[in-house]
Amino acid sequence: MQMPTPDQGIVARKDHIVARLEAVLPRGAVVHDPIQTRAYECDALTAYKCPPLCAVLPASTDEVAAVMRICHEEGVPVVPRGAGTSLAGGALPTADSVILGVARLNDVLETDYDNRFIQVQSGRTNLSVTGAVEEDGFFYAPDPSSQLACAIAGNIAMNSGGAHCLKYGVTTNNLLGVTMVMADGEVVQIGGAYLDAGGLDLLGLICGSEGQLGIVTEATLRILAKPEGARPVLVGFDSNEVAGHCVSDIIKSGILPVAIEFMDRPCIRATEAFAGAGYPDCEALLIIEVEGSDAEIDDQLARIVEIAKRHNPVEVRESNSAEESAAIWLGRKSAFGAMGQINDYMCLDGTIPVNELPLVLRRISEMSKDYGLDVGNVFHAGDGNMHPLILFDANKPGDLEKCEALGADILTLCVEVGGCLTGEHGVGVEKRDLMAKQYGPEDLDIQMAVKDVFDPKWLLNPAKVFPLEASEGRRG
Amino acid sequence: MQMPTPDQGIVARKDHIVARLEAVLPRGAVVHDPIQTRAYECDALTAYKCPPLCAVLPASTDEVAAVMRICHEEGVPVVPRGAGTSLAGGALPTADSVILGVARLNDVLETDYDNRFIQVQSGRTNLSVTGAVEEDGFFYAPDPSSQLACAIAGNIAMNSGGAHCLKYGVTTNNLLGVTMVMADGEVVQIGGAYLDAGGLDLLGLICGSEGQLGIVTEATLRILAKPEGARPVLVGFDSNEVAGHCVSDIIKSGILPVAIEFMDRPCIRATEAFAGAGYPDCEALLIIEVEGSDAEIDDQLARIVEIAKRHNPVEVRESNSAEESAAIWLGRKSAFGAMGQINDYMCLDGTIPVNELPLVLRRISEMSKDYGLDVGNVFHAGDGNMHPLILFDANKPGDLEKCEALGADILTLCVEVGGCLTGEHGVGVEKRDLMAKQYGPEDLDIQMAVKDVFDPKWLLNPAKVFPLEASEGRRG
Repeated sequence: MQMPTPDQGIVARKDHIVARLEAVLPRGAVVHDPIQTRAYECDALTAYKCPPLCAVLPASTDEVAAVMRICHEEGVPVVPRGAGTSLAGGALPTADSVILGVARLNDVLETDYDNRFIQVQSGRTNLSVTGAVEEDGFFYAPDPSSQLACAIAGNIAMNSGGAHCLKYGVTTNNLLGVTMVMADGEVVQIGGAYLDAGGLDLLGLICGSEGQLGIVTEATLRILAKPEGARPVLVGFDSNEVAGHCVSDIIKSGILPVAIEFMDRPCIRATEAFAGAGYPDCEALLIIEVEGSDAEIDDQLARIVEIAKRHNPVEVRESNSAEESAAIWLGRKSAFGAMGQINDYMCLDGTIPVNELPLVLRRISEMSKDYGLDVGNVFHAGDGNMHPLILFDANKPGDLEKCEALGADILTLCVEVGGCLTGEHGVGVEKRDLMAKQYGPEDLDIQMAVKDVFDPKWLLNPAKVFPLEASEGRRG
Repeated sequence: MQMPTPDQGIVARKDHIVARLEAVLPRGAVVHDPIQTRAYECDALTAYKCPPLCAVLPASTDEVAAVMRICHEEGVPVVPRGAGTSLAGGALPTADSVILGVARLNDVLETDYDNRFIQVQSGRTNLSVTGAVEEDGFFYAPDPSSQLACAIAGNIAMNSGGAHCLKYGVTTNNLLGVTMVMADGEVVQIGGAYLDAGGLDLLGLICGSEGQLGIVTEATLRILAKPEGARPVLVGFDSNEVAGHCVSDIIKSGILPVAIEFMDRPCIRATEAFAGAGYPDCEALLIIEVEGSDAEIDDQLARIVEIAKRHNPVEVRESNSAEESAAIWLGRKSAFGAMGQINDYMCLDGTIPVNELPLVLRRISEMSKDYGLDVGNVFHAGDGNMHPLILFDANKPGDLEKCEALGADILTLCVEVGGCLTGEHGVGVEKRDLMAKQYGPEDLDIQMAVKDVFDPKWLLNPAKVFPLEASEGRRG
């Protein structure tokens, strides 16, 4: 992974920069000892590592603004960091950068049940947003797998989804407003707690912008009333293609399940060996969950089962109790762990048109044979967000490179069938060079021109998202 | 309404400009006879009028691009026009501008039921989008009152909603991608038919940008399966405040009706006199409609009625047949006509936090007395999008000015309680000067900086959205 050469002038001024940062932050909020900065050398994409110049841990919007003013004056790059769970290297430092960690920004600022929103500082973890309102019968819908650890700031940066996003939308559909510190330290409010504000929708621009445009310090989030209940049904098929058609038909019918999860045979087998969930031994299975009152659940499940039965399923397993529901989910929830037992894996994140599912699964299986690396598929099928898991051996020389090449081929296929490079993990450094497969030079130019407006010196989250060649003339 | 002085140099070059436009468009697609350009002198905000230099009616993206290249080279402002139904003067010409009408861009380009989208040219009317798919059991959800006439291009420009938007969202939630011609004639694709593309979400920026950033020529729209059925319930209350609380409690409970429509006493009385729908004579009434299968409808209505009964309604009228449903809707659908029978009216479009409904209704009633102008309220209560109707007499000197001042006071109140100036009509020229009430100079600066990127010469839809003083240094 090529990274730009660090600015040695900045590295030489490290003591001066650290002293200026320490002057505006509380004791202990500037981490500069090389042993301690190692903690920030990578995120969950651990293949790439580089310790930063230093890290700061501000606890308020004012402290973030003070940091940004100093870095702007000194021309120092800033890498914003949520909880460091990015699978795409979204928080990978450069040697001349300051890591701005939001972990101490974790307060709840306001809850308003009449207007169904919560305002939090952006470092709060995803699950603890729901934790703050669940006693009163509410929840925050987006639920990435990492929700115990990941920060709202990172969810906003990557526009994260989760199992519930088929029904409730991804982060951008549940984000009402942000407080953002600009590259030069200016503080702006974008959006608000109520219906879209007038003027240009800059909130849509911020969500998913991967730390390229500013530092989000506070977020106003939509909260929803908890449904009365939820119940899954498991359906097994003897072909991926037929399972894919069943997903299309459910979506087309207008029923909106909370989740439609898809597992293919490699995944089912690994999962059964690991968790013994009692899944049928078939080519593909769907777990479809609906929510609502008992009457709503009965009605929706009856219609789903009717559609499924038209596709000659090998098994339809309805749940009649909480225990049976848990058994249906057990395998799915163990799938990543089960695959990890077998081998190291790389988790991809492409999206495709739902109707291309059968073709894409067939092509992945062919590519998997060509490369000699196994691929398991377990993903959110309802909205076409795929997470192919490529199995490899990190200790075998050349295996990581083969895995990267296969990953690039699979993501390129996603783009070719009309989908895109990322659903919820972001581009980061991982898919930076693939952006040219999805976007022409003019498209990239417009995107970079927008960054010019927000970050004229290109100091924010350097070397991410845009191919280095494309951004070369713009970087300072 | 102050408008910038027309550029006399452009006006003097009219023949040359018309000749260049005629050279790239089919016969009859350039309208320049002063008698014919009168047809474009205003939109549905008829209080302000100005004939354009000329109007063009291109029928393809390539023709639009050819027009934009010429106007860019000649430095001529371009005012994009959908169907001219804007209530905010969004398509008001200046004397030195070319009106770019999209009426001939009305083809369906693709329908895809598996992936639930339709791609149309942007001049297609809202209702005829549904018309193209309803035989196959689908519909396009956003349904502004003007849906018979209004164009998708205008819906995108203003981010229009409608009665169904409580459940299905407004235009931005149903728009997947656009083809847009930039100010200099370059053609770009933004978004696409499937899950959000990677990179910056420029689609969110385009939707609601009121023709300031480019000309949308094609749009990919989400279509939905038609629900099996729908049924309303009417609930009357003896106070606006209690009706407001009932709305909050329904929303808070997690039930998502398709529509919650609110009418206050002035509106109920006018409507009864006009349509004789048999509404109860009360202070406020709600019409709440739910959709789904029969079982879902029964279940949701039972829960809604239970919540309503906790608020001591003066009447709860459930529907038992299609005729009874139609009777419940009759008054609401006649409300605008009924108010128009009494007098001229101006229809406002503010949004407020749902829990501020009682306060805002009380303040509007006080202001109405102070100004001596009646105000009726009929609006989408579920999402806080208000449409106060101010009654005035267009033939009485000074009445329009009083009406405008009252309207500005009401919209300022919306901003003060945490809402905003517009829900779905846009800022246009009507609310241009009120933008400074909602946004500080820095916020406006960011918004204008984004326009700088897309339209460096500030030729697109001049004198709209931004206060003239604020944009002065930027305009050519």
